[in-house]
Formats: sequence, structure tokens, C-alpha cells
Amino acid sequence: MKSLEVDLGNRSYPIYIGENLLQDSTIFAKHIQGHLSIIVTNPTISKLYGQQVESTLKNIGQKVVQVIIPEGEEYKTWQTLQLIFDGLMSAGADRKSTIFALGGGVVGDMAGFAAASFMRGINFVQIPSTLLSQVDSSVGGKTGINHPLGKNMIGAFHQPVAVIADLGTLKTLPPKELAAGLAEVIKHGAIADANFLNWIESNISNLNACEIPAMEHAVLRSCEIKSSVVAADEKELGIRAHLNFGHTFGHAIEAGMGYGQWLHGEAVGCGMVIASEVSKEMGYINSEEVQRLTEIISQLHLPIKPPQWSAKKYLELMAHDKKAEQGEIKYILLKELGQAIVQKIPNTTIENVLYRFGALK
Amino acid sequence: MKSLEVDLGNRSYPIYIGENLLQDSTIFAKHIQGHLSIIVTNPTISKLYGQQVESTLKNIGQKVVQVIIPEGEEYKTWQTLQLIFDGLMSAGADRKSTIFALGGGVVGDMAGFAAASFMRGINFVQIPSTLLSQVDSSVGGKTGINHPLGKNMIGAFHQPVAVIADLGTLKTLPPKELAAGLAEVIKHGAIADANFLNWIESNISNLNACEIPAMEHAVLRSCEIKSSVVAADEKELGIRAHLNFGHTFGHAIEAGMGYGQWLHGEAVGCGMVIASEVSKEMGYINSEEVQRLTEIISQLHLPIKPPQWSAKKYLELMAHDKKAEQGEIKYILLKELGQAIVQKIPNTTIENVLYRFGALK
Repeated sequence: MKSLEVDLGNRSYPIYIGENLLQDSTIFAKHIQGHLSIIVTNPTISKLYGQQVESTLKNIGQKVVQVIIPEGEEYKTWQTLQLIFDGLMSAGADRKSTIFALGGGVVGDMAGFAAASFMRGINFVQIPSTLLSQVDSSVGGKTGINHPLGKNMIGAFHQPVAVIADLGTLKTLPPKELAAGLAEVIKHGAIADANFLNWIESNISNLNACEIPAMEHAVLRSCEIKSSVVAADEKELGIRAHLNFGHTFGHAIEAGMGYGQWLHGEAVGCGMVIASEVSKEMGYINSEEVQRLTEIISQLHLPIKPPQWSAKKYLELMAHDKKAEQGEIKYILLKELGQAIVQKIPNTTIENVLYRFGALK
Repeated sequence: MKSLEVDLGNRSYPIYIGENLLQDSTIFAKHIQGHLSIIVTNPTISKLYGQQVESTLKNIGQKVVQVIIPEGEEYKTWQTLQLIFDGLMSAGADRKSTIFALGGGVVGDMAGFAAASFMRGINFVQIPSTLLSQVDSSVGGKTGINHPLGKNMIGAFHQPVAVIADLGTLKTLPPKELAAGLAEVIKHGAIADANFLNWIESNISNLNACEIPAMEHAVLRSCEIKSSVVAADEKELGIRAHLNFGHTFGHAIEAGMGYGQWLHGEAVGCGMVIASEVSKEMGYINSEEVQRLTEIISQLHLPIKPPQWSAKKYLELMAHDKKAEQGEIKYILLKELGQAIVQKIPNTTIENVLYRFGALK
């Protein structure tokens, strides 16, 4: 087992990464204060791992209640959040109870927001069961739900007291979701660590085969990079924007297609290809580097061709993105492989790049 | 105009107290960053003051949108909160927009929680228009909504960037609501400042007549006391519990009657009478002091006789209170007039005191 500490002062917490962690009662016992544990999960994950986590918690004397919420981004709503609050209330939860978010990003975001809001904040532990949530959403304290008019519009910054990333859970992951998680792994290399990007390039087949030693390193290094960025900028006022590399175009693709058509990681993969091309256009990385990154993205089974909409549609979608300020878009580019930079760019430049990807005039 | 600073490090904020503040564009301008202001209010308050606040904001170049939510504690629900989010989304609010909570505690709690959650936190300004909200709910950063099974169960700690308490708004307050606000004023004297309690005793008629100089002092000293307690214990882990003097019994009365039967301040007034008697029973204050405090409460038109339920019902209601931990109730008592203390007390002692107030066996 590997572990690292996310350094956030009195909100610091450990991330445990390894096999057979779901049955490791020593780890669980360290992060519990009261007598009641509430596991929030979805039907699929409950069937796979619910019983295991429940018995680990019972072994250390916890009363355990599972709250099972429907599966999928379209249920990331207040109605579903209410199910969690109802479960907490009827279980008699108080300020010392602990919520365990067992599942992917949707479960983590909702269970985390429930923990942030219930009695104005109780403890929660993330048990991410997808690669995307292990390398991305379980680090950083972002929690929330969607508004009918915008994704993740309602939420809170609420740090978990621990993240338990059991690599064994990745074995049951559909290949598309593995690839979607790898998109964020690539991103971490691209924005912050050229050596890690080299390592990814040399381990394409191990990663595609979800081999444990490779996954352990990929998850560990991703969490290290993301957590150091988050520690430097918890509330997203500065450098944390780098984590949005590929996301400006990616969100536009997701929003334009209708959420759920492409997986988030797929849209980010393709978004990184476009953002790399913009980086070249602005005189930062060169054609070979764009080609290299595109190749890695493609070999890890992520899309590299964006939908053929008009350039205007892309710009409109991006102007409505949550990160835009009064309609002004900030782009995350690669100054070099392993180093990101944030800047504004004229629309005409973006249009020219989009035309190269087949966008319509 | 008087003002004070609530000292919370980088979340510190000023409270302005005086007349004609709603038209003071200098004050408003200091606490705005973007171009869009959203006023959250209810129909009654909108009619009285909505136009005034709107034109003050327009005078300093703001685009202004009013979101009018239904009036009353029973609407402190997610459904109403959604109306605010819908208003924010359709007005095109972003991270630099400012929410103004114009109204009493319900408006403040909901607008504050909306501000805490929208895009994971945007700025908000409290403009409390009731005495209760001027002396209590607008200081401390508690925001939230009710769950069908419990009051204020869902919420956040989110500090305003400023509180603008215009004393002129108190002139339109129904007498019962004035009295309810005075309950918290008395409480602040009782738990923290014997001199202030003396001052209240000498100013009963000025306070009942809502005379501006008296109200200014009452609001200022209350805000000073509450904000110094909050500054010492923002997340309610210790001394902040003192602010719950009268509230343990008060909440039981509110919950047992059904919320809305007694005003919160009325229940707190009566709760303070019981808590004083418990304080005497435990050997702290004496009969004369209990009598004195009861007299002040009564002369400010607050109830001093609790509903005649069984002592068991009171204990059950209190055990279910949010402040109880695993059913264990902590009581806030007066060690002396002007000094509070927190402690556990045997149920039999509480029962004996309740019998004296006519509780049934």
C-alpha cells in the first residue's frame, strides 16, 4: 500500500492507495469518531462492494446504514440528495456520524455535498471505485449537484477526512471508463510533470490492461500532482485552474452533445488535443509535441476528433461555461510538455484552430 | 451610524447600524465586486423596501434582479431555495455577483445558503429588516433550510461580506416580532454582560416603544457580544454554545407546538425563564435573580409560562434536538447574571424544575 497526505492545514487528510483496502479495518477505524456509519452508494457498486465495506465497519463496532441512490449523472439532483438526507435523518445521524462515499464521481460529489450540508458539515470518507474518481474527483474537496441549467452549479468545498482507493475495484470497470480515467492521468503529466508523461508513454499497454503496479503508480502520481495543486490553491483562485487543461473544450463538447453522450474523460481527452493545438498556435509547444500527446491520448482509447459543429457554437458553449467570467473565456495551454499556463486568446485564433479540426464556418 | 467589525481573519466583515442606510450607496459600493446584484426578499419586505434598495444599487451602476420568495418558516425548504438558484441562473449570475438578503431570518438563512452553495460560494450582504435578524441571525454565518424531520438540518457556515442594519425598518415591525427580537437582546445580557442587562432593565419602556437611540444601543451591544463569541468559536465547537441559553427548552416548545405557533423569540424568552430556574436549582443564581430576569422577560411582552406537557415529553423533545449528541442533552445555565456555563444535568433534576412550571407527571 502507498499513501500520501494532502496538505491543507487543519483540513489535511491521507489518501491510501493499494489492494484489499476495503477489508482493512485498521484504516477505517482511524477516521471514525461516532458510532454510526452511513454508506452512500449506487445499486451496481453496492452489489459488488457494499457488503464488504459494511462488514469491515461492523467489525470495528459501527452501526451501519446503506443509502442507495440511483446511478448516473442525470440523478445528480436535489431529489437524489434528499434521499441521502432522509437516510441520515431516519438513521438518527448526528454531528459525529461518518458518511462513506462508495462509488464514482457522482456518488462522491453527492455524498460529499450531503456531508458538507448536513448539520452544516459532518465527516466523510471517499472510497472511489472508478479510476476517474481515484485520480480526480476524490481529491480536492469539490462536492455538488447539477442545476437543470448547469452542471455542478450548486455545491460546497468540503474535504474528506480520508480517501481509500482500493485498486482492486478497477478490475470491474468497463473499458470505456478505464480510458476516461486515464484522460485525467495524462492531463496531470501534461500540466505538471514531463517525466510522468514519459512514463505513461512507456506504459501504454500496462495501463490499457489495468495492471496493478502500473495503476498504482498512475493513481499515486496523479494524486500527488493534483493534491499539490489543490494545497496551493484550495478555493480555486489561481493555479488550480491548470487542472482544467482540456476541460474548456471538453465541457463544450459535453454540453453540446447533451451530458452523458460522451464520458467526461472522453471529452477531456479530445479537449486536450484541441488545447494542445491552440498551445502550438500561440507559439508554445511544437507540432511534434502536439503529435506525441495526441498519440498517447489515442492509444489509450480516447477520442481525438471533436464533433463537427460550427466554431461559433464552440465559442458560445465555452462562454457559458462556469469558469468564464462575464462571458470571457480563459484558456489553459501548455507552455511546454509538463507546464501549463492560463491566458485569454482572441476568438479568431480559436476559430482558426477549430477549422483545422473540421469545425464548420 | 455605528459600526463594528466581526473579527474572523480573512472572513472578517463590518456591521453597520443606523438610520437611512438603505439609501447609502457609499456603503453598498464598498461590498460589491461584479456588475450584477440579486436581491432576495419576500413580498411584504419587497413592497416596503425593495424599490429603495434596488435604486441604491442602480445608482452605483449595478444590474439588479429581485428574487421574491414566499414568506414564512414553512417555506424554508429546498423548493424555495430552488427559486433562488433559478433566479441566479436566469439572471446570468457568476462568481462575482452579489446576493443581498433583504428581510428577516428566513430570508437571510436561505439567501445565505444559496450564496454558500451557488458555484460553491459567492458573496452576500445581509440587510436584516427585523430586530431578531439584526441582533441574531445576521451575525454568525449560519445559513440553511429545514428538513421535514428537523429545523435547520441542512446548511452551511458562510459569512456575509457585510451586514447593513437599518433601524428604520424596525418601525414597520409587528409588536410580537419586536418582542421576539428583544428576547435575544436579553439573552446577550444574561450570558455575557450584567451591565447590559441592567441597561435593558432601565430601558424597558424605550425598548417597547422601539425608540431609535435605545434600539441602536440594543442592536450594537448585541452584535458586539454575539460577534465576539462567534469570533472565538466560528464552527460552534465550544463557547458558542452559550448563545443557546434558553434555546434548549425553547426549541422543545417550538417543536412540540409545531413550528410557527410561537415565534422563535417567544419560545426562547420562556426557555430562558426555565433555564434560569434550572440554574438556581444547580446552586448558581439565586431566587431574586431568577425573579429579576423573569420580570424583564415578562415586561418586554414575552411569555413566561411554558405549555403544560409532561416532563417526559420535554425531555424527549430535547433529546432529539440537533445540539444533543447521541441523545445526551447539554444545558446552558447562568453561573451568575452575565455569565453562562454549559453542563449535563440528571433528568430527575430537570423534571423537578419542569413540575414547578406546571408540567404533568
